[in-house]
Amino acid sequence: MQANNQYAFGLIGLGVMGRNFILNVAEKGFTALGYDLDPGQVEALKREGGNLDRVNATNSLEAFVQGLETPRKIMLLVPAGPIVDSVIEELLPLVSAGDLIIDGGNSFFRDTDRREAYLKEKNIHFFGAGVSGGAEGARRGPSLMPGGDRDAYREVQPIFEAVAAKFEGTPCVAYLGPKSAGNYVKMVHNGIEYGLMQLTAEAYDLLRRAGGLGNAEIQEVFARWNRGRLQSFLVEISSEILGRKDDLDSGDLIDKVRDQGKQKGTGKWTSQNAMDLGIPVPTIDIAVSMRAISAFKQDRERADTLFERPGAGSVDTEKLIADCEAALYFSFLLTYAQGLHQLAEASETYGYELDLATVARIWRAGCIIRAALLEDIASAYETAPELVNLVFSENFREPLQKAATPARRLVSLGVSAGIPVPGLASALSYFDSYTTGRLPMNLVQAQRDYFGSHTYQRTDRDGTFHTDWDA
Amino acid sequence: MQANNQYAFGLIGLGVMGRNFILNVAEKGFTALGYDLDPGQVEALKREGGNLDRVNATNSLEAFVQGLETPRKIMLLVPAGPIVDSVIEELLPLVSAGDLIIDGGNSFFRDTDRREAYLKEKNIHFFGAGVSGGAEGARRGPSLMPGGDRDAYREVQPIFEAVAAKFEGTPCVAYLGPKSAGNYVKMVHNGIEYGLMQLTAEAYDLLRRAGGLGNAEIQEVFARWNRGRLQSFLVEISSEILGRKDDLDSGDLIDKVRDQGKQKGTGKWTSQNAMDLGIPVPTIDIAVSMRAISAFKQDRERADTLFERPGAGSVDTEKLIADCEAALYFSFLLTYAQGLHQLAEASETYGYELDLATVARIWRAGCIIRAALLEDIASAYETAPELVNLVFSENFREPLQKAATPARRLVSLGVSAGIPVPGLASALSYFDSYTTGRLPMNLVQAQRDYFGSHTYQRTDRDGTFHTDWDA
Repeated sequence: MQANNQYAFGLIGLGVMGRNFILNVAEKGFTALGYDLDPGQVEALKREGGNLDRVNATNSLEAFVQGLETPRKIMLLVPAGPIVDSVIEELLPLVSAGDLIIDGGNSFFRDTDRREAYLKEKNIHFFGAGVSGGAEGARRGPSLMPGGDRDAYREVQPIFEAVAAKFEGTPCVAYLGPKSAGNYVKMVHNGIEYGLMQLTAEAYDLLRRAGGLGNAEIQEVFARWNRGRLQSFLVEISSEILGRKDDLDSGDLIDKVRDQGKQKGTGKWTSQNAMDLGIPVPTIDIAVSMRAISAFKQDRERADTLFERPGAGSVDTEKLIADCEAALYFSFLLTYAQGLHQLAEASETYGYELDLATVARIWRAGCIIRAALLEDIASAYETAPELVNLVFSENFREPLQKAATPARRLVSLGVSAGIPVPGLASALSYFDSYTTGRLPMNLVQAQRDYFGSHTYQRTDRDGTFHTDWDA
Repeated sequence: MQANNQYAFGLIGLGVMGRNFILNVAEKGFTALGYDLDPGQVEALKREGGNLDRVNATNSLEAFVQGLETPRKIMLLVPAGPIVDSVIEELLPLVSAGDLIIDGGNSFFRDTDRREAYLKEKNIHFFGAGVSGGAEGARRGPSLMPGGDRDAYREVQPIFEAVAAKFEGTPCVAYLGPKSAGNYVKMVHNGIEYGLMQLTAEAYDLLRRAGGLGNAEIQEVFARWNRGRLQSFLVEISSEILGRKDDLDSGDLIDKVRDQGKQKGTGKWTSQNAMDLGIPVPTIDIAVSMRAISAFKQDRERADTLFERPGAGSVDTEKLIADCEAALYFSFLLTYAQGLHQLAEASETYGYELDLATVARIWRAGCIIRAALLEDIASAYETAPELVNLVFSENFREPLQKAATPARRLVSLGVSAGIPVPGLASALSYFDSYTTGRLPMNLVQAQRDYFGSHTYQRTDRDGTFHTDWDA
């Protein structure tokens, strides 16, 4: 172990994410010290670390803090929630003014705001820095979404830029904004992720149940898509997943995976906060809702025996595949549109000063929602930084118009056949609603005024009106 | 004014709801005293009160509290939020142990729990009692949803049963459960209300845009529906609204109402809490989301000029009307199913001990979501109290199966034509998902395990599994 104050970077929490992240830091030439309560994790890092001079680990928090050069850069990769608070409390007597504590977990943004304010009083800089890319990303290059004090960020910037994934040489990390800006962006990233996952699952289901395709054929379809405009991590791994054989049994592993969705909360938070902000994110909402429905597995199996479904009848497979490709493009794009619209509003409401082109750029590599589409999205925001919603971008007008038709066909097919396509349907109805000058919400407003005297506005004059409707 | 301790019931907040509620109480033979800070409201009640011996009002809180017989029954009809807390603080020095404070507003259920616990320490019984029916309901008979201490409820029971709406002689009020059970039930009532309103608006839109029907024709269609299985307050008032002439101009008033949805939060709370509970309520979610979309009126008008919509082509009007009727029946029922499923889970989680048959019964009259359908729903829960979801009720199996076909046709029509039908589509995909034994959520679980090592379950053996998917 090096002498005191010699390590450039400290990491608390040496689970798979933490271990991979610190190895990544060391590999990029920085000295790095890890801490974990569990001696097993400490040993595991030392074993994997190789060059012990550059990366080391301890299960003494005092030795850990003393080992870091000042201002200390201490990153936490521990489970979100009360553990973050208790680690902070343990660190407080040991750290010095000007040190940085960086929470790399999926912490709720309001917790980050609270912690940032609390530590600011003690002259400690607190950062919420979303890390996306999973264990593999942490090792090879994640997308990093840091928020906090702009000046203090410079201390950690060289390390973050070195470890982050690169998109054509540009690191997928940027200072995003003050306070919880980083956690918030990561939260919405995950909300978009929920949407995209639900959509790929629906495409798989349509190809399987309506198209009658087998796993190997769908694997090939996803692989082909991944060479075109749908190129993205989730499409790529879907293809790999469909090709994976079962280690425990014969056949394809995908057929043995139980269709019961789990979640850890970030998608739910995205939807819940979008509702607070008054921003529509229906494709994220329904993705959250579908995880919940799927969890009622026994109910579903029982209900399945009670009702009959029409089924898809005979389908032109090549046309189905082409429609799925277009519908996925259409609905992926509209899911990003929803999430970015939420970020635009959150930036206003919470004072994040987000630059959406930057957000799209740091999502182009390393993270779970990386996709070729993000290059076009980044350029849409670069050409029109005031863009409220991607549907207004000149770049996407023609592609959206063109892809809407196959999306309509596909949703109609699912709806007629009884194959649930709630994600695809929600993206389409979002598009149709957002591009309809006159919605039937006038009836809703009239109803509200009828029974609750909630008043309404008129199309032809200013002011607020109330009517005695049954007069 | 009568002598001290002579009024049987006290009401704080003499706005239109409060005034109507207290007049209702007095009309049923109870002496009632109102309080409002605003002398104008006090005078208004005295004017309308007529028999001043039975109903009176004051703007002195001391005189108000002293005027009530003990244990005092003090109902608050003031805006939800901090005002409730400040009224409670003002009351505390004046009331006595054993008194009842009843919050009739749409308070957030967690606020009610907090207030209930706080007042319990002071031996004051606090009730959250949702009141539905709007101003008219408050005057003629609302549906009342009280929750709190079971024994203390007896004190106010005769008054509540007298003022509540009657369904074939049975009062639409019942003790629902401890703590915030009443507020929670009212919140979900409102969530269902959001769903039903969105659905009626979509039917109106389809009849107008796809069917080419005018307001008078749609008025007649809704009136006809209201004589059948769709008989409900919201269908009834929709018909009246469509027939209402504009007082300020020529033509129909509905055409002048701006299509920008407003909300006061209860629908949003329902969705947000359903997500916390893991219960799918997609039709309520999308109704909340559509209010948000509709609020972007200028965006929508601008986007409308950028894209083309296919339109509905030629449609058989009679068939369209019949399909709308069936699709509304289908989706109304599934909206109630979602809300009641949420109540079942909330009852478990929060210890409300709800009886869902009772909940359905007290919604049969007085409230905004009253509908003929609720009689069937109440009887479904009476015959099968363990019912998890209405889709499992023998009573609804055939009607759901039959109505699914026209619902599919109608959603396909909207989707193909570019007329947004997100509510109808969400009800249908809820039905299709809840009755599908195998959803494509296996792919989502495999993706989660691929990138985040989140593990998965298998269909063929117990335990939790992780796979190195790209090995």
